[in-house]
Amino acid sequence: MKQTSRIEINPERLLKDLKDLAQFGRLTTGVSRVSFSEADVQARHWLKTQMERAGLNAEFDAVGNVHGRTNTDAKSVIIGSHTDSVPVGGWLDGSLGVIYGLEIARSIIELGLANEIGIDVISFMDEEGTYLPCLGSKRFCRELGDDELAKGQSPSGERLPDAVERSGFMGNPEMSIDRARHLAYLEAHIEQGPRLEASRKEIGIVTGIVGIRRFKLEITGEADHAGTVPMSMRKDAGAAAIGLLHSLYKEIAKTKGPESVWNAGSIKFEPGAANVVPAKAEIIFEIRDLEPDILNALETSIHRTVENISPGDNITYVVTKTIDIPPSSMDTGLSDHILRSANAIGASNMKMPSGAGHDAMVLSRHIQSAMLFIPSINGKSHSESEDTLEENIITGCRVLAKTVESIASF
Amino acid sequence: MKQTSRIEINPERLLKDLKDLAQFGRLTTGVSRVSFSEADVQARHWLKTQMERAGLNAEFDAVGNVHGRTNTDAKSVIIGSHTDSVPVGGWLDGSLGVIYGLEIARSIIELGLANEIGIDVISFMDEEGTYLPCLGSKRFCRELGDDELAKGQSPSGERLPDAVERSGFMGNPEMSIDRARHLAYLEAHIEQGPRLEASRKEIGIVTGIVGIRRFKLEITGEADHAGTVPMSMRKDAGAAAIGLLHSLYKEIAKTKGPESVWNAGSIKFEPGAANVVPAKAEIIFEIRDLEPDILNALETSIHRTVENISPGDNITYVVTKTIDIPPSSMDTGLSDHILRSANAIGASNMKMPSGAGHDAMVLSRHIQSAMLFIPSINGKSHSESEDTLEENIITGCRVLAKTVESIASF
Repeated sequence: MKQTSRIEINPERLLKDLKDLAQFGRLTTGVSRVSFSEADVQARHWLKTQMERAGLNAEFDAVGNVHGRTNTDAKSVIIGSHTDSVPVGGWLDGSLGVIYGLEIARSIIELGLANEIGIDVISFMDEEGTYLPCLGSKRFCRELGDDELAKGQSPSGERLPDAVERSGFMGNPEMSIDRARHLAYLEAHIEQGPRLEASRKEIGIVTGIVGIRRFKLEITGEADHAGTVPMSMRKDAGAAAIGLLHSLYKEIAKTKGPESVWNAGSIKFEPGAANVVPAKAEIIFEIRDLEPDILNALETSIHRTVENISPGDNITYVVTKTIDIPPSSMDTGLSDHILRSANAIGASNMKMPSGAGHDAMVLSRHIQSAMLFIPSINGKSHSESEDTLEENIITGCRVLAKTVESIASF
Repeated sequence: MKQTSRIEINPERLLKDLKDLAQFGRLTTGVSRVSFSEADVQARHWLKTQMERAGLNAEFDAVGNVHGRTNTDAKSVIIGSHTDSVPVGGWLDGSLGVIYGLEIARSIIELGLANEIGIDVISFMDEEGTYLPCLGSKRFCRELGDDELAKGQSPSGERLPDAVERSGFMGNPEMSIDRARHLAYLEAHIEQGPRLEASRKEIGIVTGIVGIRRFKLEITGEADHAGTVPMSMRKDAGAAAIGLLHSLYKEIAKTKGPESVWNAGSIKFEPGAANVVPAKAEIIFEIRDLEPDILNALETSIHRTVENISPGDNITYVVTKTIDIPPSSMDTGLSDHILRSANAIGASNMKMPSGAGHDAMVLSRHIQSAMLFIPSINGKSHSESEDTLEENIITGCRVLAKTVESIASF
């Protein structure tokens, strides 16, 4: 591997910080560190201390974002992600991008380069949406007013303002993008999928974050005794749902783009008893793609599938769109910095969309943003089995450091 | 309508008793009277009192069956059913057959015929299986030892012996079939289906009670992030389950007999989240028919459907039979008594299988047994909307009384 960077990171220190952070909410191999939990708040205090030791000015903001900045007036790159996790999550999801920022900022300060390029390291609050998805990045980007924030609530019923108060963040200063200071937003993240590993690439350069549209398909018939009512006299919502979904899979496969994905993650019959003909069925169906035109075509194929069902089966079908998140494009100029930086240090790479949401989705609406991915072993994430080879972790940080260098044009 | 019976029942008294019984556990139109509930136990005490007022010797047995017999040595017909209900049930399911027995016994006593033909009226305990399906009839037929009885448990976790004790039945005498006394078992029941109504018939003469085989189909793939894992790299247990069930519906429809019914009443995906590719799917599939050969063919078509799935999809399929209740034949001679009796009094009738289980299923293994059905409005049962026209209720009782007369050959 070539290595021609002025910003030379310290791999041992990087790995030690990641492992230290993984002690907060530690499970056997993963972490349980949902936002505003004791483990999450402790981890954020630990992170603030590490930032201060690195020579950064570190603060909590009014929703618990941890923000550390180099203490100079130099133009600055924001490097961020999140340190909260899903209830049973992996040790790198989110944490990786935050600790990359810490290590790069620390290296820049040590190397005496902080007057040339500044770094703002941020751990955004609640990316995983325990209370409100991308809470921290939305608040940071002024997308989230107090009214909407007050609607946030945890699965156990705690209101978001109460969680902020309980965690000691209430009344802290608000933070946001400073157009005089901030050049760009960079986020590194584990891929959370198998494509880099399957392609034997070290770095994924993210072209954009897919749009997500989610639909509830409700199929209504009539409950009947499953022994006494002849087949011809039933209005079986369950059988109708199976027929609908089977047709939908075929229809979607005809309409899909090269990167499209879809999922029926949930289906339920009511009343759900072995000896009762289902009165109702509900399917949750999701489509994702980078291209709005393809999303439109996929959505049309859902409606077409329902319309193509022959009438007269005495079953009613209702399709409701419950989520519609538009795709986010990453900045091409900034992505080219990542590409050139990866090539400069000899890291194999490929362009790819992100199939999952990230804080960069929010930031990209306000400042030029780019993301890089590193491989996930077996493509696993949101589980204790999530992991990445140490050499891939180190390479990712070197590429990100080189990207900062490239942006600053040292 | 012709009316040439010696056993003349009293329609007003019959309807009043049914309505009085429906006060125990009354809902708006239905009843909630699960076995061993306060309402069920009170209803059984009320029934015992009505039996005594009718001149019957009435007792509770050791599991809460209520047993009233004419106080003579004459050969006797058992007329029975159950007075417990499902959690939200109808007012006639079970109660009808018990009150028919009470009314016929009362009429026989009043008419001074009890030395010629005796009646044993029984309300069996827990036909609906809150603790143990057909508990009362199985115990009465000595099919259920103390060990198996002790395994019974309610959905709320109460053990059956504790329910018996709590309800005051513990230590009562056991009752059972008396071969020197009992000629036959007769059970009248609402149809719980739409066939009599659709055929405009007043009486269904039950040819047999269908056998039930229930299967658990377990489909196992692998959980994946529904955004980040390309379609070609998934092991989607949900999509596999939909394909399997769609094929199974087609296969079963090719194999079915004229009276076959089947039902997929429940399907579940795990983990069941919109954004996670299902790791596991479970389908509960049930088949019912009167003919063992057809049941065998239907069962074979389930296995064939699984075998026909092309290998190499990295999905595993496991089929487990969880319930196998053999069909029960009703006694043809006894059923002919019902047929002749219905014709004698001008009640329109048809032969039909019972798609639901009944206490007669148990009794038929030990004594010649027969059943008659009366129509259910809109075919509804196990719901508050269960109901039957009063004229149909009265006709059913007259046919049953005439059947008793026919058996006794007055």
